[in-house]
Amino acid sequence: MAKSLVLERKGQLSLREIALDTDLGPDDVRIAIRTVGVCGSDVHYYTHGKIGPFVVNEPMVLGHEASGVVTEVGAQVRHLKPGDRVCMEPGIPDPTSRAAKMGIYNVDPAVRFWATPPVHGCLTPHVVHPAAYTYLLPDNVSFAEGAMVEPFAIGMQAALRARIQPGDIGMVTGAGPIGMMTALAALAGGCAKVYVADLAQPKLDIIAAYPGIETINIRQTPPAEAIADATAGWGADVVFECSGAAPAVLGLPQLARPGGTIVLVGMPVDPVPVDIVGLQARELRVETVFRYANVYDRAIALIGAGKVDLMPLISLTMPFADSIAAFDRAAEGRETDVKIQIEMPDA
Amino acid sequence: MAKSLVLERKGQLSLREIALDTDLGPDDVRIAIRTVGVCGSDVHYYTHGKIGPFVVNEPMVLGHEASGVVTEVGAQVRHLKPGDRVCMEPGIPDPTSRAAKMGIYNVDPAVRFWATPPVHGCLTPHVVHPAAYTYLLPDNVSFAEGAMVEPFAIGMQAALRARIQPGDIGMVTGAGPIGMMTALAALAGGCAKVYVADLAQPKLDIIAAYPGIETINIRQTPPAEAIADATAGWGADVVFECSGAAPAVLGLPQLARPGGTIVLVGMPVDPVPVDIVGLQARELRVETVFRYANVYDRAIALIGAGKVDLMPLISLTMPFADSIAAFDRAAEGRETDVKIQIEMPDA
Amino acid sequence: MAKSLVLERKGQLSLREIALDTDLGPDDVRIAIRTVGVCGSDVHYYTHGKIGPFVVNEPMVLGHEASGVVTEVGAQVRHLKPGDRVCMEPGIPDPTSRAAKMGIYNVDPAVRFWATPPVHGCLTPHVVHPAAYTYLLPDNVSFAEGAMVEPFAIGMQAALRARIQPGDIGMVTGAGPIGMMTALAALAGGCAKVYVADLAQPKLDIIAAYPGIETINIRQTPPAEAIADATAGWGADVVFECSGAAPAVLGLPQLARPGGTIVLVGMPVDPVPVDIVGLQARELRVETVFRYANVYDRAIALIGAGKVDLMPLISLTMPFADSIAAFDRAAEGRETDVKIQIEMPDA
Amino acid sequence: MAKSLVLERKGQLSLREIALDTDLGPDDVRIAIRTVGVCGSDVHYYTHGKIGPFVVNEPMVLGHEASGVVTEVGAQVRHLKPGDRVCMEPGIPDPTSRAAKMGIYNVDPAVRFWATPPVHGCLTPHVVHPAAYTYLLPDNVSFAEGAMVEPFAIGMQAALRARIQPGDIGMVTGAGPIGMMTALAALAGGCAKVYVADLAQPKLDIIAAYPGIETINIRQTPPAEAIADATAGWGADVVFECSGAAPAVLGLPQLARPGGTIVLVGMPVDPVPVDIVGLQARELRVETVFRYANVYDRAIALIGAGKVDLMPLISLTMPFADSIAAFDRAAEGRETDVKIQIEMPDA
Repeated sequence: MAKSLVLERKGQLSLREIALDTDLGPDDVRIAIRTVGVCGSDVHYYTHGKIGPFVVNEPMVLGHEASGVVTEVGAQVRHLKPGDRVCMEPGIPDPTSRAAKMGIYNVDPAVRFWATPPVHGCLTPHVVHPAAYTYLLPDNVSFAEGAMVEPFAIGMQAALRARIQPGDIGMVTGAGPIGMMTALAALAGGCAKVYVADLAQPKLDIIAAYPGIETINIRQTPPAEAIADATAGWGADVVFECSGAAPAVLGLPQLARPGGTIVLVGMPVDPVPVDIVGLQARELRVETVFRYANVYDRAIALIGAGKVDLMPLISLTMPFADSIAAFDRAAEGRETDVKIQIEMPDA
Repeated sequence: MAKSLVLERKGQLSLREIALDTDLGPDDVRIAIRTVGVCGSDVHYYTHGKIGPFVVNEPMVLGHEASGVVTEVGAQVRHLKPGDRVCMEPGIPDPTSRAAKMGIYNVDPAVRFWATPPVHGCLTPHVVHPAAYTYLLPDNVSFAEGAMVEPFAIGMQAALRARIQPGDIGMVTGAGPIGMMTALAALAGGCAKVYVADLAQPKLDIIAAYPGIETINIRQTPPAEAIADATAGWGADVVFECSGAAPAVLGLPQLARPGGTIVLVGMPVDPVPVDIVGLQARELRVETVFRYANVYDRAIALIGAGKVDLMPLISLTMPFADSIAAFDRAAEGRETDVKIQIEMPDA
Repeated sequence: MAKSLVLERKGQLSLREIALDTDLGPDDVRIAIRTVGVCGSDVHYYTHGKIGPFVVNEPMVLGHEASGVVTEVGAQVRHLKPGDRVCMEPGIPDPTSRAAKMGIYNVDPAVRFWATPPVHGCLTPHVVHPAAYTYLLPDNVSFAEGAMVEPFAIGMQAALRARIQPGDIGMVTGAGPIGMMTALAALAGGCAKVYVADLAQPKLDIIAAYPGIETINIRQTPPAEAIADATAGWGADVVFECSGAAPAVLGLPQLARPGGTIVLVGMPVDPVPVDIVGLQARELRVETVFRYANVYDRAIALIGAGKVDLMPLISLTMPFADSIAAFDRAAEGRETDVKIQIEMPDA
Repeated sequence: MAKSLVLERKGQLSLREIALDTDLGPDDVRIAIRTVGVCGSDVHYYTHGKIGPFVVNEPMVLGHEASGVVTEVGAQVRHLKPGDRVCMEPGIPDPTSRAAKMGIYNVDPAVRFWATPPVHGCLTPHVVHPAAYTYLLPDNVSFAEGAMVEPFAIGMQAALRARIQPGDIGMVTGAGPIGMMTALAALAGGCAKVYVADLAQPKLDIIAAYPGIETINIRQTPPAEAIADATAGWGADVVFECSGAAPAVLGLPQLARPGGTIVLVGMPVDPVPVDIVGLQARELRVETVFRYANVYDRAIALIGAGKVDLMPLISLTMPFADSIAAFDRAAEGRETDVKIQIEMPDA
């Protein structure tokens, strides 16, 4: 039995053997994992032992951002074969639930999601996964990029919910990894320009390297003033709130144009004050995002076509043997670390 | 010169002569007013002298919910003629503004709106109005109903923004006049049923008389429990928040189904706490409403077709000579008073 | 073994025993059939032996519009129990197909549909069906109405695709059973009025009995003229083409308002001429309909709430023992027969 | 009085003085024209004397794709001033018409459009135009690009009507100037890739130079086969029909994925056969395009941001003094000529 990265309990990681379900059903594929990204939620389970109602009560394998190679396919699988390079959607719904029948399987209450207690994640050499949630990577998309599809999918879901119109002016508040992913998805998804606001200049410097992105350091300029200047006082067509910070949420109505859209991506832990009359005065539409549904295909298409380059956001790659060190580094939260990835050894 | 109902200052009304603009432009019509509804905003200017940034600094004619008869038309007017029975949209935008060009003239910052300082209202025998914002009433729609189109238009705007799908289950929190209008618009607009929640039983009794409406007295049953019972735990497809009350806003995510919609109609004076993670967990869409645009035609069509009967919501009708008394009665805020109307004398 | 209604080959029906799959999977329910409607497609297989690429090469049980009573449930079924009164969606997709994941399971190429060769239908005493496509009937909805949900679902799909806005003016060309269903769905779904055009006065007389419906006999008045008269020259907001007739299709652009919508429900056998420049001149949107997805719940909600009354459209009810006679009657195509239903004997 | 390019009658152009309206209203601007593109419709009036119902009965100035410099502004104009570099929307609606109030001013029957009989065009040194339909060019957008905004706006309208979702696979049938504009708008508007099909290889070679574009020579590969190969048999998400050719229209259902979208941009002169059952079998949505509304801002934003480069599509630039020769060259219809522009002399 091979070793997995196991969160034993809050604050304690082991690289050890652990029994995992390895039965291959007729609609499943077996995958040799190649690259896994470290997500803020993985780190949060490590440092806090829980996220909201999800509590780590038993040892759990971490990781949910993964790419790999198919090694075996179930009897009914048609679109994949051994040797295929793939990435995987980490949440598996009940496909006949009411939500799934409507195409919004992300909000099916029965979803089982990698590395969300009590479901094991993918920082392990092999996983069994439903073929329907396993996606072929084009030849020109690397395993590293394949493992970026999951976080990029959140930005894509935000861009989809926004219903961007070609030539829209976008704005993102909060330049963390998800804010960056959202900015790139919005640009690829039709925005003419995206203004990204944050108070950490090192983060802004990273995203500013992309054409089409303009940055706003909110220590220097209030974001409402900056976007008004950029749009002759009209406001952004779409504002993506990715900071989860209460002051950012309160100020949202001042950023959007009359009839514009706000997408709430960041997750404030507790209820925060919202200026409802401000939203009404411009008759804004507010969309929310919960993970993603039906976006992996299109995310991969954009990466494969070269419209989105996620490689500059991979800050550091470490071997699986050093994965505890990788989590400790991620837990530091350096402003210049966007994404840390872990590479599995070649089989 | 005829008398108008003038708000001299906070708390003081007069029925007196006042000079109004009476020039008839080529695209205008002159209208003899017949019926005017008393709106909460009119009463608020009377009792508080202001609403948010709009302050009564000079005497102002009140009233913006009106029907009447065309008496004269400008040289360019084609679709109206003297003798036509009409109702009027009280907000007039700049038709070439950026918002108006997009069809969302309600959020044009330049809108001039009756009885919103410093613009005079329509509690006066004659008004001049742009023909483009004056709508013909079918023969079977009375002046009383015509004066109900304005408040009903807010409910219609809420129903439009909701993008109701045929057979949706609707829910309304807050059974004030606008909550009732919204419930009726939602029913006519495709909902199978609409659940209306309030804590005032007399209000609930009034709206419960309509087929398709179910009521929830939130003193007896928490609304989240009531809607869960009614929908096998799934939630309402569309929730219209019409109370403006902070606890109602905070509880909204528990009322809607996964992927459902919330429409914010009620206007809390100050920012109120919103459970953003709750909205995200069901990936809800939140729409807001500011007055209305392009709904008068369709509101009149529904009333004329008999799909919406607003007559039961007219609680009391008083002659223009008693209009100060009508305002004092409205200011009492009786739970059984939905709409008080004022009738002008026949010309 | 009980008898089923078997189409042996084109033109030949038998009431005889036939072996059907009766295995109950963990997600299935077993249902005692109570009422089955006769659909034009059933009759077409009887009279022509095929529909497009679907050819009756082996004996096949007919019928796909059914209600019944649950008699047994699989181990995983939670929302149904023996004794429940239900109706069934006749098409079963692969729930993990690309289309099904997107919520449009009706266009999954792998759908298996009752009484579409080589899949058997439901004119048989008992069927096994996936619980996910079996819907509970409220107490106030009869088995006869339950068996009407399937044809009404097509009208509902048309109304959904139309994205009706509250107060829209609707128009239906073709007053066959599906045209009538569509007109009622459009009315319940938010239209203020629906104008129904046909050349058979007996059909128009049946639908004219519903409030909100206006009829146009196109032998007397060209439909474009009639709708122009009714809308001051503006046109209908939504036009549902339900005749499948080439002249009706060609004339569609003249019926809709600028920026309006056309929904193609009727199915012309061969390509027909379309006035594309006419569609463009008003920038119309054209939607198409293929069966339905996610509409049974909402169809049942509207019927249960009393917003749609389908009973007047049931022209004749015959016992199962006379089902061949029922098909022969249906094949006559009387203008006053909207829907013929077959009742199974009590168990 | 300065000279204009006047179409005297079918086949006869003059460069001569002609009296034009030069009154500057309070909401107007006066503009010195700098660059004017030659459009297929201009050429069609020259060669045929009419387009559909629009007949050249009197001498008419040609040209409607223009950029220039503001020289004078009316008393009410706020957002423009003399010296501003601008481009102009050539269609002017009645801003209070029913269509214009809804935001779809392009389908207002009262629109007056440059160089559409009897309205004069802009191949003249100075024009007076409403400020509301005059758009500021950023410093980095040349007059040549400014004069490309009009034809690009049609592609943008097609992209908007398509409601592209980020990562969609697009397809364009017909690689004429509008097909090329549409392909570029679709790419900028969120498509991952756009496949362009035509039978003229020189046209395909021009558009193939853009990253993200793949070409299909339909003399070599049937387009349905090519798109099936490119999408694992699924089909394009959005198909833009830009050829106006009957065989292309008939084959559209085979190009789109289940639940996909078709946008009809090309204008077949007469009704053409459409495979309605084919559209229904995949439940496709069909959008149509008529000019554009509310797209100039966003078109300019995309050009200014560098997301769309139209310069390679300007094949030839000629001085105003040679404009008759420019029209004769355009009338040749060379496959390598995408857009011919005419430059006015500096004032």
